[in-house]
Amino acid sequence: MSTEQVYIFDTTLRDGEQVPGCKLDGKTKLIIAKQLDEMGVDVIEAGFPISSPGDFQAVQNIANVVKNASVCGLTRAVKKDIEVAAEALKSAKKPRIHTGIGTSDFHIQHKFKSDREKIIERAVEAVAYAKTFVEDVEFYAEDAGRTDNEYLARVCEAVVKAGATVLNIPDTTGYCLPEEYGEKIKYLKENVKDIDKAVISCHCHNDLGLATANAIYGAMNGARQIECTINGIGERAGNTSLEEVVMIMKQHPTLNLHTNIKSKMLNEMSRLVSDSMGMGVQANKAIVGANAFAHSSGIHQDGVIKNRETYEIIDPAEVGVSESSIVLTARSGRAALAYRAKNVGYELSKLELDKVYETFLTFADKHKEIKDEQIHEIIKQSNL
Amino acid sequence: MSTEQVYIFDTTLRDGEQVPGCKLDGKTKLIIAKQLDEMGVDVIEAGFPISSPGDFQAVQNIANVVKNASVCGLTRAVKKDIEVAAEALKSAKKPRIHTGIGTSDFHIQHKFKSDREKIIERAVEAVAYAKTFVEDVEFYAEDAGRTDNEYLARVCEAVVKAGATVLNIPDTTGYCLPEEYGEKIKYLKENVKDIDKAVISCHCHNDLGLATANAIYGAMNGARQIECTINGIGERAGNTSLEEVVMIMKQHPTLNLHTNIKSKMLNEMSRLVSDSMGMGVQANKAIVGANAFAHSSGIHQDGVIKNRETYEIIDPAEVGVSESSIVLTARSGRAALAYRAKNVGYELSKLELDKVYETFLTFADKHKEIKDEQIHEIIKQSNL
Repeated sequence: MSTEQVYIFDTTLRDGEQVPGCKLDGKTKLIIAKQLDEMGVDVIEAGFPISSPGDFQAVQNIANVVKNASVCGLTRAVKKDIEVAAEALKSAKKPRIHTGIGTSDFHIQHKFKSDREKIIERAVEAVAYAKTFVEDVEFYAEDAGRTDNEYLARVCEAVVKAGATVLNIPDTTGYCLPEEYGEKIKYLKENVKDIDKAVISCHCHNDLGLATANAIYGAMNGARQIECTINGIGERAGNTSLEEVVMIMKQHPTLNLHTNIKSKMLNEMSRLVSDSMGMGVQANKAIVGANAFAHSSGIHQDGVIKNRETYEIIDPAEVGVSESSIVLTARSGRAALAYRAKNVGYELSKLELDKVYETFLTFADKHKEIKDEQIHEIIKQSNL
Repeated sequence: MSTEQVYIFDTTLRDGEQVPGCKLDGKTKLIIAKQLDEMGVDVIEAGFPISSPGDFQAVQNIANVVKNASVCGLTRAVKKDIEVAAEALKSAKKPRIHTGIGTSDFHIQHKFKSDREKIIERAVEAVAYAKTFVEDVEFYAEDAGRTDNEYLARVCEAVVKAGATVLNIPDTTGYCLPEEYGEKIKYLKENVKDIDKAVISCHCHNDLGLATANAIYGAMNGARQIECTINGIGERAGNTSLEEVVMIMKQHPTLNLHTNIKSKMLNEMSRLVSDSMGMGVQANKAIVGANAFAHSSGIHQDGVIKNRETYEIIDPAEVGVSESSIVLTARSGRAALAYRAKNVGYELSKLELDKVYETFLTFADKHKEIKDEQIHEIIKQSNL
């Protein structure tokens, strides 16, 4: 059965890079962009050209070197922004301008001090103007998560008519529940005239820890682009994690969705981004955390040694990790100890193992983790 | 409208503590247990008493001091485990034994080399035996996420009959999609005889980044206990984050669910756990990450300065964070610069701001973040 493709729009270099402490120099941005391109990302959001001269330059350089992906620049619904973005993207093989405006009543009243009809006018103007520079124009309805669906559909219909090729429906504040976000996408799919002329895109924030689930629910309901970042970095609690949505689609064939990402590059990509931004990834991060494939409790280790799939659904090699690790701590059991002892040269009988295990526990209660060197010492002290 | 309570079962000291590098000494475990109790956690899983003498002692000490929460000890479906746990929990005001066995075909065949009927027998025996020591017995159907629903319902029915007060349905491998997990809980609610005699509990792992969404979908479908950890630590990619599920229920009144957690203690609790375990929390972690309430892009800062709710759904004070921060980087706009300049004593006119902003951008392109000291320097160089 054929599955449908979900485009991966990576915004590590824009929504990710705008984060406190994450600023990159132009050279590093270029290295990351090349790697993203090689990994199979469909769209690279390279920056926000009008925001600073450095960012303009970076977008221009990225546009010069990227071979396969579309290169995208962010703008507000402001002419000058759009002109500057178009200029920065001039040499891109597939340039995309990403323009938009807040559509929730909250944004309309507090941020723009405007009204709904005027916002539609500005949205249409911005898309039409961007269209004079490039064919591929993505429109974002900022704070779509808190925008009522009926008005949102009207905005979408108007910008599709003006030539938008992609409709980005951001849950800007990370507020939605998965079902709610999914229903929003479904509503647009069913109520926007000529919706098939545009790709619907999910852009979810992680303020409640739901960015990944929300993006997947969007795709389940008809969205065909997911905006995400490596390691889930981004404004506040960050964005949807690229590595998570890619692996969910891979692990769940019933979704009938796929991406073009080479998953074996995920682990290396994660390190490149965290090292160059100095933005640590917590050990318990899904897919790319240091412990994502580490087993330490006795019950789990015993299971994994018998058969990896007892506790692991993803083969570590699939995401570029060399192997699952069996870590020895005070919670480890005999199976793990025997396994690790064997690795350093000891074939222990059942009786010997019982003896060594007792020494091991006294040791392990005093240490966070038992290393190979200490195994020799433990066996020595066990007086076999 | 009255909302239903979801019990919070914290397993930071068991599923969290068993992680590579997270081992704690007995004294620290005690400090954390007291704090969890004060924060309003309903059940504290204190450890796995048979796993080591140190853990036995820790569970015993925690049982001695906890005032309000139930104190729980983990066991396998093994008599000796249950006896040792009962011994460790002797002085608890509300002791709970947590026993169980793998129920997926994968676990039954590869781990236990057994069959379905024998597994039910062992499950019932374990629950009945635990029941001779304590009134409150929680049963876990390990790898329930991959167990077919019909068989899982039979297991649940049998253990409820044997006296189980709580049914833990773990997605041990972190495999389920939210809808799938929710449907599993719903199936049990509708098909297990006398299901109302027990509380259904969600225990979700985060291998695909869905642990929080899955637990919420469990609760939406009838589960009334969520097993979780501070900062989402735990085996591999960790467990459901306590802080995330608590704040989701608080932010979404339409769920009609609440917990008894004092959310103002969340931030301090997160730091206590990460500092004592040496287990860093990434800056972009929801609710408790360093950047969870930090705004750096110009568009966002402008909005937040006008009205916090433009980009924030959670008031930082509600989770114990003193205030949202406006971080100055090359992506910041005039509004943020004016705001921060005012904080250090400069009231800039519109024209002055334009001048200072230009100097600021040149500075900011070279630095990750602009601190208060540098603002003075920038203003000086702007020759106002």
